[in-house]
Amino acid sequence: MRDLVLYIGNRNYSSWSLRPWLALTAAGIPFRDEVILFDFPAGNPGLKAVSPTGRVPLLVDGDLKVWESLAIIEYAHELFPDAGLWPKDRAARADARAIATEMLSSFHALRNACPMNIRRPVKAIDLPEGVMDNVARIETIWHERLARSGGPFLYGAFSAADAMYAPVTNRFEIYALTQDPRSRAYMAAVKAHPAFRAWQEAALAEPWIVPEDEA
Amino acid sequence: MRDLVLYIGNRNYSSWSLRPWLALTAAGIPFRDEVILFDFPAGNPGLKAVSPTGRVPLLVDGDLKVWESLAIIEYAHELFPDAGLWPKDRAARADARAIATEMLSSFHALRNACPMNIRRPVKAIDLPEGVMDNVARIETIWHERLARSGGPFLYGAFSAADAMYAPVTNRFEIYALTQDPRSRAYMAAVKAHPAFRAWQEAALAEPWIVPEDEA
Repeated sequence: MRDLVLYIGNRNYSSWSLRPWLALTAAGIPFRDEVILFDFPAGNPGLKAVSPTGRVPLLVDGDLKVWESLAIIEYAHELFPDAGLWPKDRAARADARAIATEMLSSFHALRNACPMNIRRPVKAIDLPEGVMDNVARIETIWHERLARSGGPFLYGAFSAADAMYAPVTNRFEIYALTQDPRSRAYMAAVKAHPAFRAWQEAALAEPWIVPEDEA
Repeated sequence: MRDLVLYIGNRNYSSWSLRPWLALTAAGIPFRDEVILFDFPAGNPGLKAVSPTGRVPLLVDGDLKVWESLAIIEYAHELFPDAGLWPKDRAARADARAIATEMLSSFHALRNACPMNIRRPVKAIDLPEGVMDNVARIETIWHERLARSGGPFLYGAFSAADAMYAPVTNRFEIYALTQDPRSRAYMAAVKAHPAFRAWQEAALAEPWIVPEDEA
């Protein structure tokens, strides 16, 4: 039996940690998690001792360290090819990897201005240039795929692509970035998923406040 | 027989186009390429008609469109699993995906200040904050893997991970960012690869100058 350990940051704020944690949990892949606090003025010496990049998430499997959310998901997909991390259809899987990678390479305006924050009440903020362009592109991505699959998730069943966009569903909600009913239904479906609820419950129990992530 | 078409930007400047083009070419995967000029003040209407993101690279396979360099590489890897796009060893493959994804998510200071430019003569420039931190991390990535594999490439034989770092080898050379002999030997090996030479030859034959990419 493999002993997979996923190092994650504070659940309330760490959007990159949420992605692989949610993908692996929703797929029923057995792993333990270890929280390493971050974003405090004193830095994160614990993290630098463990992670080659000094960042989370990081998956450790014996001697092997795998970092970057998408690389972690691909490694888990190789270990558990039948767990449904990616859609079963090859064309859908290619599309899912394209939008998952676009999440990784893009949307910097949104990601910088609107940090994920699980416990934050809904409240609009002044949005810098570029954020609403990001929102529009993400909604196009969602609506095209939901129209094709019929929902509730982007490819029907929950997949790693949904996990990659899960932090965005939180951002859209707490900063009131959309009222589109298709988007709201998708956001509600992600929020109601048992794996997301487990993450949320643990996040709400965290005592730590990180001022620069409180927009 | 599949008719794979890879849409790419100007070869002299388009670092994101180079990555999948080089990976697929080096692996002997049959595809055609189509150049769509970009970065001109008038914009790129041709690109917007073809690409869901308005960006290159884009792989078209019949009705399927796959964008983002890494998603293109993963799709080609599924179609041609024995072509050697990724290292054969599972742990090496996971490591290769981690560093390939880190290239995608990181090194913005270097990428912004030092555009890839195949025809540019070697000349140092004033470097903004953060560039040399990026250089140091990239050299750590290279040196660790070259020490393990014995070279000439990161995992011995040329793989998609080398393709993902190929634009960086050009940047390191033309802006004189390193004199480390291990890095220089690796940069020379990439530059001497037949696939890279084919790209370089075509880039040098291009007439187009894009002022904002001339640092």
